[in-house]
Amino acid sequence: MREVAVLGVGQTRFGELWDLSFREIGIEAGLQALVDARLSSKDLGALYLGNMASGSLIDQEHIAPLILDYAGLAYRHLPAMRVEGGGASGALALHQGYLAVASGQYDYVVVGGAEKLTDVPDATATQIAASTADHEWEVVFGATLPALWGLVARRYMHLYGARREDLARVSVHAHEMGAKNPNAHYRNRLTVEQVVGAPPIAEPLGVLDCAPFSDGAAAVVLGPLDEARRHTDTPIRIAASEVACDTMALQHRREVTSVEATVAAARQAFARARRAPADVQVAEIHDAYSICPLIGLEDLGFVERGRAGPEFSSGRFGSGGRPTINPSGGLKAQGRPFGAVGVAQVVELVRQLRGEAKDRQVAGARLGLAHDLGGTGATSVVHLLERAS
Amino acid sequence: MREVAVLGVGQTRFGELWDLSFREIGIEAGLQALVDARLSSKDLGALYLGNMASGSLIDQEHIAPLILDYAGLAYRHLPAMRVEGGGASGALALHQGYLAVASGQYDYVVVGGAEKLTDVPDATATQIAASTADHEWEVVFGATLPALWGLVARRYMHLYGARREDLARVSVHAHEMGAKNPNAHYRNRLTVEQVVGAPPIAEPLGVLDCAPFSDGAAAVVLGPLDEARRHTDTPIRIAASEVACDTMALQHRREVTSVEATVAAARQAFARARRAPADVQVAEIHDAYSICPLIGLEDLGFVERGRAGPEFSSGRFGSGGRPTINPSGGLKAQGRPFGAVGVAQVVELVRQLRGEAKDRQVAGARLGLAHDLGGTGATSVVHLLERAS
Repeated sequence: MREVAVLGVGQTRFGELWDLSFREIGIEAGLQALVDARLSSKDLGALYLGNMASGSLIDQEHIAPLILDYAGLAYRHLPAMRVEGGGASGALALHQGYLAVASGQYDYVVVGGAEKLTDVPDATATQIAASTADHEWEVVFGATLPALWGLVARRYMHLYGARREDLARVSVHAHEMGAKNPNAHYRNRLTVEQVVGAPPIAEPLGVLDCAPFSDGAAAVVLGPLDEARRHTDTPIRIAASEVACDTMALQHRREVTSVEATVAAARQAFARARRAPADVQVAEIHDAYSICPLIGLEDLGFVERGRAGPEFSSGRFGSGGRPTINPSGGLKAQGRPFGAVGVAQVVELVRQLRGEAKDRQVAGARLGLAHDLGGTGATSVVHLLERAS
Repeated sequence: MREVAVLGVGQTRFGELWDLSFREIGIEAGLQALVDARLSSKDLGALYLGNMASGSLIDQEHIAPLILDYAGLAYRHLPAMRVEGGGASGALALHQGYLAVASGQYDYVVVGGAEKLTDVPDATATQIAASTADHEWEVVFGATLPALWGLVARRYMHLYGARREDLARVSVHAHEMGAKNPNAHYRNRLTVEQVVGAPPIAEPLGVLDCAPFSDGAAAVVLGPLDEARRHTDTPIRIAASEVACDTMALQHRREVTSVEATVAAARQAFARARRAPADVQVAEIHDAYSICPLIGLEDLGFVERGRAGPEFSSGRFGSGGRPTINPSGGLKAQGRPFGAVGVAQVVELVRQLRGEAKDRQVAGARLGLAHDLGGTGATSVVHLLERAS
């Protein structure tokens, strides 16, 4: 396989972008990434777009050529296609773009992720989010994603003695990081007391344990590693891109306090890259609900099973941590535009590995990990990115 | 790039499958293809699923792991992902599966296409189909796909003198072929008089110029060509897999009587395969509306610009034609389950190239072409398949 590098990154603000349409945010992120990669559109080979639910959200399917068109590139007749896997759509689009360059059919591709969520009421967005769980076995009985993750949180607390405060600290951490990110949906700081005292959504999860619905887009330019120096002084190599899946419904899993798809994807990713969790300095870990990254840290091998709660609360994964997680603010603070999340995680890692993350720079970042989930973990995607020295 | 072959094929009946759910048809096609490829699921590397609008149609996103799960493969934690590009979703999934095998990351992949359309009213399906046109510039003003293709047909007739009867013969041809296909939605024969006299949908197109909304699924197993003989006596090589896009809205095209995306994809496909249109014996050409294959035949280089009407009516593309088109019955007679179409086209070509197409066998078929469109041609996908000796 041909080695693949990230040559450029771009991202819009995340938040309630009521003055911008879906096509506008998609274009903005993509063009930023092209400029950052010093790539002329005439060298572009294809566009991959991660998006979860544009059909339900904006009555528009077939959005990949739409973005290409409104970016002024229709006359080039480039290939453009959408990739979908619930909340992991962006990471899956990246996986596809990576394989496309690795295959040799395309040299340079833009991988974008975009979602316009805030033009529908929150209740509608909640229903659409739930369409990534098993409709026939979960959703028809009233389950929503926070309800399902709430069940998981209860079970996790029961099995391992994690405390309500441990969950709350996940959100406190996210907002502390997000405060330094100019693109973040939320830049306010939170206290444990605020999170614990917030109105309940699906106990033990309260409203401040749940990431918001956001609008936003992110994009990266990928190309062959051996041509990367023509585009950037600091090429970031994709050391591994791995996807794994599991049952749609929680009830069909052996155990709900581990996402086996993450365990599988992480094992394959570290094997392919010939690295171990201890080699990672910075990680973007899926945190749509505060329980998610506790389980994620364990599934990824960063902490022993059942120990994520106290270890997290001890500050082990904060600034200077092993690894530092979610310097972007994660889904909780940077925001959660479904299909853009997986790409935005990689945008943040690239900035960290380049040493361009300013206030939120993780010192000595050489190897980064991105972890994105769809639904309650029926899809998990793990990317390892490495500064190519 | 590693060479890729089709090792197995599977397909459900197309039609109003009210007794089967989305997940059931998806599984049926995929398992048939695995059996046909003599592939154990333990050798499977990934699942690609083409689907256009499951979110709007069955309230379920994230369907690729769903199909993997209900096929009994969740415990393997394989990668599974959905690819979407309107009516071209199936062909795009095939493109992605092809690149995945070509890249070397996966050896064997299943590419499926599935859609469950008939559980919603036809008016809803029409609206969902229209979501593949430009929502902000076409659909909000009331345009539907048949309305847009009706405009194209009018312009084509005006420019080139094609007759209403030429359009009608496209549907007559499709039903003649479909009558021999046990999986076809419609197996009745039509006359030109019936098509011309049918109730109008968007003049000049009547109801019998429009493909039906169907349920159905199709699947293929792809693998490395150099291992293909372990699985089949007649491996079918993918000689080219090319995608091209154009503007979403018809009004932004230079000319609506040619789909430039098809011209671009075909040019690239023939160049990659080092073949010419005259080398093709059998072709599956997108015919959601009767005007589509007339334009498609010209864009693909099978007939001179403006001549498709009379040439079609002369029987040039019927049995023994150059090439014979749509032996499956095409979208018009075999059926039109959006995301399954592009995969089903390739299933038919594989059967033709293997010499297994029974009553509808095209004699001497060695090179086949599949052509799939999204929307009004904002996406076009061309595959060339060749019997590997």
